[in-house]
Amino acid sequence: MKNSRSVIETAGHKFRTKNISKRVQKIVISPIKEMSILADALEEKSNLRKYEKKIISFGQGIPYLDTPRFIKKAAQKALGELSTAFYTLEPGINELRELVAKDLEKNKKIKNIKPKEEIMITVGCQEAMACAIASIIDPGDEVLLPSPTYASEIEQIIQFGGVPKFVSLIEKDGWHLDIKNFEKKITKKTKAILLCNPSNPTGAVFSEKELRLLAKIVKKYNLVFIIDETYDFLIYDDVKFFSAAAIGDIRDRVILCSSFSKKYRMTGYRIGYAFADAGIIDHMLKVHDALTVCAPAISQKAIIAALKDENNSLKSLEELINKMEHNRKLMCIELDKMKDVFEYQKPKGAYYILAKYKYPKIDSFNLAVKILKEARVILIPGAAFGPSGEGYLRFSFAGEPKNIKEGFQRLRLWFGRHKNT
Amino acid sequence: MKNSRSVIETAGHKFRTKNISKRVQKIVISPIKEMSILADALEEKSNLRKYEKKIISFGQGIPYLDTPRFIKKAAQKALGELSTAFYTLEPGINELRELVAKDLEKNKKIKNIKPKEEIMITVGCQEAMACAIASIIDPGDEVLLPSPTYASEIEQIIQFGGVPKFVSLIEKDGWHLDIKNFEKKITKKTKAILLCNPSNPTGAVFSEKELRLLAKIVKKYNLVFIIDETYDFLIYDDVKFFSAAAIGDIRDRVILCSSFSKKYRMTGYRIGYAFADAGIIDHMLKVHDALTVCAPAISQKAIIAALKDENNSLKSLEELINKMEHNRKLMCIELDKMKDVFEYQKPKGAYYILAKYKYPKIDSFNLAVKILKEARVILIPGAAFGPSGEGYLRFSFAGEPKNIKEGFQRLRLWFGRHKNT
Repeated sequence: MKNSRSVIETAGHKFRTKNISKRVQKIVISPIKEMSILADALEEKSNLRKYEKKIISFGQGIPYLDTPRFIKKAAQKALGELSTAFYTLEPGINELRELVAKDLEKNKKIKNIKPKEEIMITVGCQEAMACAIASIIDPGDEVLLPSPTYASEIEQIIQFGGVPKFVSLIEKDGWHLDIKNFEKKITKKTKAILLCNPSNPTGAVFSEKELRLLAKIVKKYNLVFIIDETYDFLIYDDVKFFSAAAIGDIRDRVILCSSFSKKYRMTGYRIGYAFADAGIIDHMLKVHDALTVCAPAISQKAIIAALKDENNSLKSLEELINKMEHNRKLMCIELDKMKDVFEYQKPKGAYYILAKYKYPKIDSFNLAVKILKEARVILIPGAAFGPSGEGYLRFSFAGEPKNIKEGFQRLRLWFGRHKNT
Repeated sequence: MKNSRSVIETAGHKFRTKNISKRVQKIVISPIKEMSILADALEEKSNLRKYEKKIISFGQGIPYLDTPRFIKKAAQKALGELSTAFYTLEPGINELRELVAKDLEKNKKIKNIKPKEEIMITVGCQEAMACAIASIIDPGDEVLLPSPTYASEIEQIIQFGGVPKFVSLIEKDGWHLDIKNFEKKITKKTKAILLCNPSNPTGAVFSEKELRLLAKIVKKYNLVFIIDETYDFLIYDDVKFFSAAAIGDIRDRVILCSSFSKKYRMTGYRIGYAFADAGIIDHMLKVHDALTVCAPAISQKAIIAALKDENNSLKSLEELINKMEHNRKLMCIELDKMKDVFEYQKPKGAYYILAKYKYPKIDSFNLAVKILKEARVILIPGAAFGPSGEGYLRFSFAGEPKNIKEGFQRLRLWFGRHKNT
């Protein structure tokens, strides 16, 4: 039995489901990772054959640059410290929570943060979001999400018994929020609005105006606003980023989750954080304790170094932004060369493009698998990101520039062969 | 409102609970960590005063030795590799899964493990258990647990909507399983039996005979057997460890979770694993994806080194076991000096002693907090481990030997002052 949100029959569904909880039977491994697992299996097979090309990934969003040297140096130093061997305090190292609070006050204009009561350090933004959703959602509760939206967050809601309710984004002019439709979809069961800004998979950056309108709805209907701001640092074309957590009116009902994974090129270190009112964090900490105990000590210490060294931090950030800006340009040029196949909105943030395909006339799951197997390029099926994603493919441009060129060469060939199908 | 399983009113309960899910309102931060958080706050206060003694911890179970040098060296090497910056494959690095499979086949006599289908790498044993429980338990489902048992696992069950049902252990002769009572407590809603072996907090090591009898019940009633074997390597007095996962008859309904945290002195690295039938792991992977994406790359690589270097691995293990054996002796001597206060069963595994106190006549939560504040020693209240734990305190002897002596000096003084209360 294939789940309607999974890419392959073999992931999550190939074995007996006897004794498996109903909640978990309903979820899938996010297709973003399913595609990597499928690719890994393909690579293993082709290692035996040898003549096949290495797979190129426009899939999982991983900046191709190594972790900045000054951060690796801090990790190296941490390895020499006895305390790195040990659990840290469950909510995170105090110094790190203070640094995160300062960073948020400075860069997001959030006021008077109490680090010990309002900040918790987590195993990436993913765990922060899991703690947030677990703390707010009871079985049957509804969560409003834009569609398309980040795939894993759909699974997280279902996993805790919640019901995702999708509000389509307005694609024209860059995937904006349909505020009126958010309000229309509110029922007695609605508990939260959840979104990521900048948006994965569309690359949209929601404006202060949009977010303030949504915040009004959040307050009016006594909801909680859960926001994933993993890509807050990666904004193009002089667009201004605004954090809804800075809206004083909803200060006690915002949960802001974020990650150091992308900003400091350390997706492998598994480190992120959550900020919310003490009355919410206090509960999220219980979930965190039951899920992971604490975030890795070495990663916490590496991030302390990053946040303390503003100079090197800014430099590394600038480097990353420049490279991603360059990649965005490259990928847009390549997509523009394929106007007969793809239509897309140029992203204003993050490193994703969600492109509509005009052919072949098959669903995005089957298309992504065919392209992987036949063209050896990983793309993520749009339907993974919610119902409005069907008919689209997500491209990550976080990889090496030379791979963007090579990948599109393969795609041009492949689509050339499938014209009029 | 104080939860009956939490130490302090201020943890998890001091703020408004508006909009918080019912599930999470019911859980607590495990008192094992609450005591550390409370101690941290006390230390901070006394830093201002200065004259107060540093708090001694017999609380959270952390071996006092640093991570072995050959493992830290591997972590150091990993820092030089580009791939350490990146997410690993979601179920874990393939090489690591193969090494874990081999290790289980060799040391636990489990047969024909398929590493890619039956092993997943997690953020410590805690996340492995969370994935296991989430994958088996629906709201209202019952899980049978021995009492006392590891505190966090009670919270994990409640968090996913499950109902913990306790079966008292038989303290006499060393906290053994009351097999008949397990069978008696089974209802239509029972979905799993969950225990840790060797047992935290009692230090009991369940025998092959006991486990085989329990396995029969598991099979007879179509249950799943979830086992935490974090302390499998730490066995005293020629007792033999036996893994229930080796019982062929229940091979398709066992979930074995374990950790490298204690074995390789790396609680701060957050790395563990789960082994189960492909039909179960396949679902647990979906939960893992939604909780943490993957375990930290650097920790996975450090463990690959540990599992590959059998020689150094054995040496470091021997060192740890010797030190813990020595500590056990030390702590038993100290407890024996306080026979007017404490009665206990000598542990056969792990590094915990659960001791009954004869006075003062107050509950274990209040007692632990009083002792922390007045004697500056962290002990864990027995009631944290289930209803049969009331009237007991858990002592960890994983800390430095000199602290065991100093801690007991303080305890003798304190209990001396509270005689006949």
